[in-house]
Amino acid sequence: MPPQLRIPGPTPCPDDVLKAMGRQMIDHRGKEFGEVMYRVTTSLKEMFQTKGDVFVLTTSGTGAMEASIVNTLSPGDKVLAVSIGSFGDRYADIAKAYGADVQCLNFEWGHQADPDAVRRVLKDVPAIKAVLFTHNETSTGVTNDLQSLAKVAREYDKLVLVDAISSLGSINLETDAWGCDVVCTGSQKGWMVPPGLAMVSVSQKAWQAYEKAKMPRYYFDFGKARKYLEKKQTPWTPAVSQFFALQVGLDDLAKEGMPNVMARHKRISKHARDSAKAIGLKLFPASETYASATVTAINGPDGVNVVKLLQVLRDEYKVVLAGGQGKLEGKIFRIGHLGLVTEKDMDEVAAALRSALPSVGLKAL
Amino acid sequence: MPPQLRIPGPTPCPDDVLKAMGRQMIDHRGKEFGEVMYRVTTSLKEMFQTKGDVFVLTTSGTGAMEASIVNTLSPGDKVLAVSIGSFGDRYADIAKAYGADVQCLNFEWGHQADPDAVRRVLKDVPAIKAVLFTHNETSTGVTNDLQSLAKVAREYDKLVLVDAISSLGSINLETDAWGCDVVCTGSQKGWMVPPGLAMVSVSQKAWQAYEKAKMPRYYFDFGKARKYLEKKQTPWTPAVSQFFALQVGLDDLAKEGMPNVMARHKRISKHARDSAKAIGLKLFPASETYASATVTAINGPDGVNVVKLLQVLRDEYKVVLAGGQGKLEGKIFRIGHLGLVTEKDMDEVAAALRSALPSVGLKAL
Repeated sequence: MPPQLRIPGPTPCPDDVLKAMGRQMIDHRGKEFGEVMYRVTTSLKEMFQTKGDVFVLTTSGTGAMEASIVNTLSPGDKVLAVSIGSFGDRYADIAKAYGADVQCLNFEWGHQADPDAVRRVLKDVPAIKAVLFTHNETSTGVTNDLQSLAKVAREYDKLVLVDAISSLGSINLETDAWGCDVVCTGSQKGWMVPPGLAMVSVSQKAWQAYEKAKMPRYYFDFGKARKYLEKKQTPWTPAVSQFFALQVGLDDLAKEGMPNVMARHKRISKHARDSAKAIGLKLFPASETYASATVTAINGPDGVNVVKLLQVLRDEYKVVLAGGQGKLEGKIFRIGHLGLVTEKDMDEVAAALRSALPSVGLKAL
Repeated sequence: MPPQLRIPGPTPCPDDVLKAMGRQMIDHRGKEFGEVMYRVTTSLKEMFQTKGDVFVLTTSGTGAMEASIVNTLSPGDKVLAVSIGSFGDRYADIAKAYGADVQCLNFEWGHQADPDAVRRVLKDVPAIKAVLFTHNETSTGVTNDLQSLAKVAREYDKLVLVDAISSLGSINLETDAWGCDVVCTGSQKGWMVPPGLAMVSVSQKAWQAYEKAKMPRYYFDFGKARKYLEKKQTPWTPAVSQFFALQVGLDDLAKEGMPNVMARHKRISKHARDSAKAIGLKLFPASETYASATVTAINGPDGVNVVKLLQVLRDEYKVVLAGGQGKLEGKIFRIGHLGLVTEKDMDEVAAALRSALPSVGLKAL
């Protein structure tokens, strides 16, 4: 039995996806690859719920976040970074690295971002050009109300850049209807494909920003991606295997039906939270109303060494969970439940937790 | 039978590599991945012939070229770009995109770069900080005398940045002995692994340059890669499957022995050229002394529509060759013979060419 890999990505891959990963190479400038690329891109547009462009970049999710910034902004541009955790902070850091004038609006970890607080800043600082949002904060297990947040940003005519790496394909995100200009996701999340590809959507407003954007870029240049997509190619040699796999993964998701996929994630995340609470564990998010449908963050109980807990789960129970990131290291642990996941998987995780906790210092719950 | 994929990358993968690509995901922050990463990195250092650092980035080769520049240079830095073809031009373009003051030293396509010409420029322009070299120019099938070129650059104490994407692992390159500061390669070349990873070496001198380099960077930041390598991790989620595959590919190469691997590439490239000449075809490189051991560029014979030739070879003979790039489009075609390749493969390519040429307008040779 392979271990229960229950981290928020890479996620376990279905057999048909793994089989596609093992396919022999083909010419990435040939007709067959062009067909794969066309099908993948067309299918992704549906999943992104956009009529805009979608590009598949050979990179990790962080590369896509970088791409969203360098293609739309210039050094010195004022940017509002709305952060509710580690990945929100990363988005701000990327913008700073490229010379944006970043104003941070940080919310307490475990909480949602407040649209009214965003509105107050945008009202106060008209020079802000773009707002960076995290849809689902993987580090805290909190999903933002992106629809309301994006609405505020659009009221003030700001560019809306979204890290949806661990949400898109699992949690509803209506790119066009909500007014998101660049949305990023990664193959190793709900898409059930190994890491190596990141997918981004680009709106008309983002293209207008692109024309004026002066941040340096080459590998991540959307203009080059657009030019090559016209001939069903990528500007640089793509991760061909992951393209094969993504086609299969997307077909699997389409077969299940996206409304069903999203309902399944909601249902399973509730099951995960209920199971944790039944053991007496406490959730990290301040309210369950915004607890993530793809990753559940749980407080390390008093007396429990979280690092040791994860080690015992891995070595003795073959259950792989994730630790805390940044300032939450050693304080929380996280259960990934996105992509290929069932209630039974969560039952196995809960059973392992129930059994392992007493051996790592659990005193009382 | 799968087609004969004879483009200069992606190259065909051995069965054991493809099997590794199909492995189930593991935790990229766990012990098992750390061991894979450690083994891959250690093995690569031998192949790079360096005691410096080697990082494996989740990107294409072009991303590694970008990394070599943004980690060592500042906007306004004077850079000499020595180009003998399309990829040499690309290296210059990347440096320009990030604001380097690029001086181009272009040699006629099909020719080698002349170390004396490089010396003259370096003597004339003392402000030059770094020199960009292509070891093996994939677009023209020419291998530069990198040892002599790097020697000149070192005489003048310049930083030596090298695109060795289609040479390293197939053609001898002594990173430390020749004084190369950053050397880039890609998994889909002689390494016999699908695209998705790029490998770069970083010398002490390059680290000194890194400390002062002001070009913006985040995803490709060597400092972040170094910090995470200490704990046998990558800063961003890596292409786990290609790491599995690279470990297998490196083991395969080590088993054959690198001197044998390099001798095989030399032998097979000569066989490819001899076979082409036996049909009456003319090589694109001006002299066979510097014809590449990994890719053979051949002039389209008079009267032959090269695009049509490649199409017929692919559709009727199941032999996939590459066309010309940039200004050579429609004028030459290229046979890739790197990685998993034997004399028999070249015989099959030659037989297909001999048979196909008359059907696409060949009048006389």
